[in-house]
Amino acid sequence: MLRTGPRSVVPAVLVGLALSRLAAAQSDPLPSWNDGPAKQAITRFVADTTKEGSPKFVPPAERIAVFDNDGTLWAEQPLYFQFLFGIDRVKVMAPQHPEWKTTEPYKSVLEGQVEKALAQGDKAILEIMMISHAGMTTEEFDKTVRAWLETARHPRFHRPYTEIVYQPMVELLGYMRASGFKTFIVSGGGVEFMRAFADKVYGIPPEQVVGSAGETKFQLGQNGPVLMKLPKVEFIDDGPGKPEGIQRIIGRRPVFAFGNSDGDQQMLEWTAAGQGAPFMGLVHHTDAEREWAYDRASHIGKLDKAWDEATAKGWTVVDMKKDWKKVFAFEK
Amino acid sequence: MLRTGPRSVVPAVLVGLALSRLAAAQSDPLPSWNDGPAKQAITRFVADTTKEGSPKFVPPAERIAVFDNDGTLWAEQPLYFQFLFGIDRVKVMAPQHPEWKTTEPYKSVLEGQVEKALAQGDKAILEIMMISHAGMTTEEFDKTVRAWLETARHPRFHRPYTEIVYQPMVELLGYMRASGFKTFIVSGGGVEFMRAFADKVYGIPPEQVVGSAGETKFQLGQNGPVLMKLPKVEFIDDGPGKPEGIQRIIGRRPVFAFGNSDGDQQMLEWTAAGQGAPFMGLVHHTDAEREWAYDRASHIGKLDKAWDEATAKGWTVVDMKKDWKKVFAFEK
Repeated sequence: MLRTGPRSVVPAVLVGLALSRLAAAQSDPLPSWNDGPAKQAITRFVADTTKEGSPKFVPPAERIAVFDNDGTLWAEQPLYFQFLFGIDRVKVMAPQHPEWKTTEPYKSVLEGQVEKALAQGDKAILEIMMISHAGMTTEEFDKTVRAWLETARHPRFHRPYTEIVYQPMVELLGYMRASGFKTFIVSGGGVEFMRAFADKVYGIPPEQVVGSAGETKFQLGQNGPVLMKLPKVEFIDDGPGKPEGIQRIIGRRPVFAFGNSDGDQQMLEWTAAGQGAPFMGLVHHTDAEREWAYDRASHIGKLDKAWDEATAKGWTVVDMKKDWKKVFAFEK
Repeated sequence: MLRTGPRSVVPAVLVGLALSRLAAAQSDPLPSWNDGPAKQAITRFVADTTKEGSPKFVPPAERIAVFDNDGTLWAEQPLYFQFLFGIDRVKVMAPQHPEWKTTEPYKSVLEGQVEKALAQGDKAILEIMMISHAGMTTEEFDKTVRAWLETARHPRFHRPYTEIVYQPMVELLGYMRASGFKTFIVSGGGVEFMRAFADKVYGIPPEQVVGSAGETKFQLGQNGPVLMKLPKVEFIDDGPGKPEGIQRIIGRRPVFAFGNSDGDQQMLEWTAAGQGAPFMGLVHHTDAEREWAYDRASHIGKLDKAWDEATAKGWTVVDMKKDWKKVFAFEK
């Protein structure tokens, strides 16, 4: 674009951009955060790592910030949203599978007894996820997820799932990027599921989403090549899989990591073991009124060992109730 | 950085940057390319896709350019350089493995008969690669590769392997980036091997390198967490694995792809099947004097089916001898 525009216009555009960035930096970049220890730890980290000459300065190329998704950027109750998508897919696919009427875990799902399907354990849950996420091309899957996000509504808030995102975390993502950090999602969620909304909702492009993945197979179809999604797990990006996925895909150790559960513990440990003064953060769900309150005993987003380690090592723990002025953008 | 510098300085710096970019754009961005059909196809593609209002305009976020490495960005003769690294590693590791003196394929390697080791087939080659790339942490591996690149010399040119890179392709990478494209390596080579030099040699950061990978395992060691490299293949980024790897890691279809062998055919097909007017290129090794001449009958970098498809479909085929003024930067 620099090469095609009129020459004299370009510097003016850049000057304008620089001035607007300066103006933005002078106002509060995190307006939905109360001025407590969590916000202070974040802004101090950014000031220290972006000030040239500071002993904690991090060169721009090494400013890698990673964020879990479920329970960290958007909610994960009453069930992971991707699992609710899987349930809806099973219902849509049921006419092609008459045998499901009498086969578990499908029978329970089709009878509306999701709890009963879940109670059948990890193998049953994985089967639902695999079958509902395979048998189509990657492009068809992307369209399917986007269509679902348009129409599906969260059972408690009666809004699209893409609105059940934490406004303070959206601000944090923008603040980190404005400070020269490259923001990545590193989540147990499916990489292709998250890509369908991460760009629009979080400003995170497809190539900066790391997640669990199923295998795909390159095939020459009638209308050219396609990638078929197979009902086979390739990689689970959770627990120890998170640092493994970070190394495999990003290839740099993060200097800033945010999670909310024991599934993020190893990612935070891996970040903490880096050079300099990295930042480790956890969202603690303490607000049953505006969101949910859960931690050590929760079946989803259990926060137990990672919380103990955060306390012992002085990582930042966000108290949702105290630290966030607003949880969701749609709140009055 | 914007937030910390004196306010009045920032716009001036940006103006200077813009002017220097304009100046660079006005001179030839591809000085090592002869003004033949290949260079013209490249510059026409860039002009068409970056001019706002053009029917072929590609928004900056979608400007994904992918490059094979072996035989496309650097040479691959007399053997893949990474295999030569593996051979050297076996020699270094031999004192800890006295049994190798009598066990193939190690015996042949240690006796200096690499051809004999290779003749034992893919299984033997894979075994050498696995054993030489595992049993250490990812950080130790990175240091090992960097140390090898410092001291090892190419058998024909007697220079570091990082100098056996194609100057015209280095210029092309820079030209694509200056035109707003995000450049990725998508190679059958090992992702962690390539990351040890891709940033310095090609200007491609670790998070934009896609390659074959071994499994790693997160472990809590005495000095904190480490990722141990296991002698187990996780993913082979070659042939149909290339579009699979692109989808898995980049998550967008490229609009520009360059390879040199049948291992790149599916990546080029995947790119060609995208919307708009994508660019597909192949480097044809036609210069036995300055580099090597090989194609349909080569055991390394075989170019046969992909060449036929390129001819049939009008993809750009670079004739190294005719199209490149200079192959390596060290040439007089």
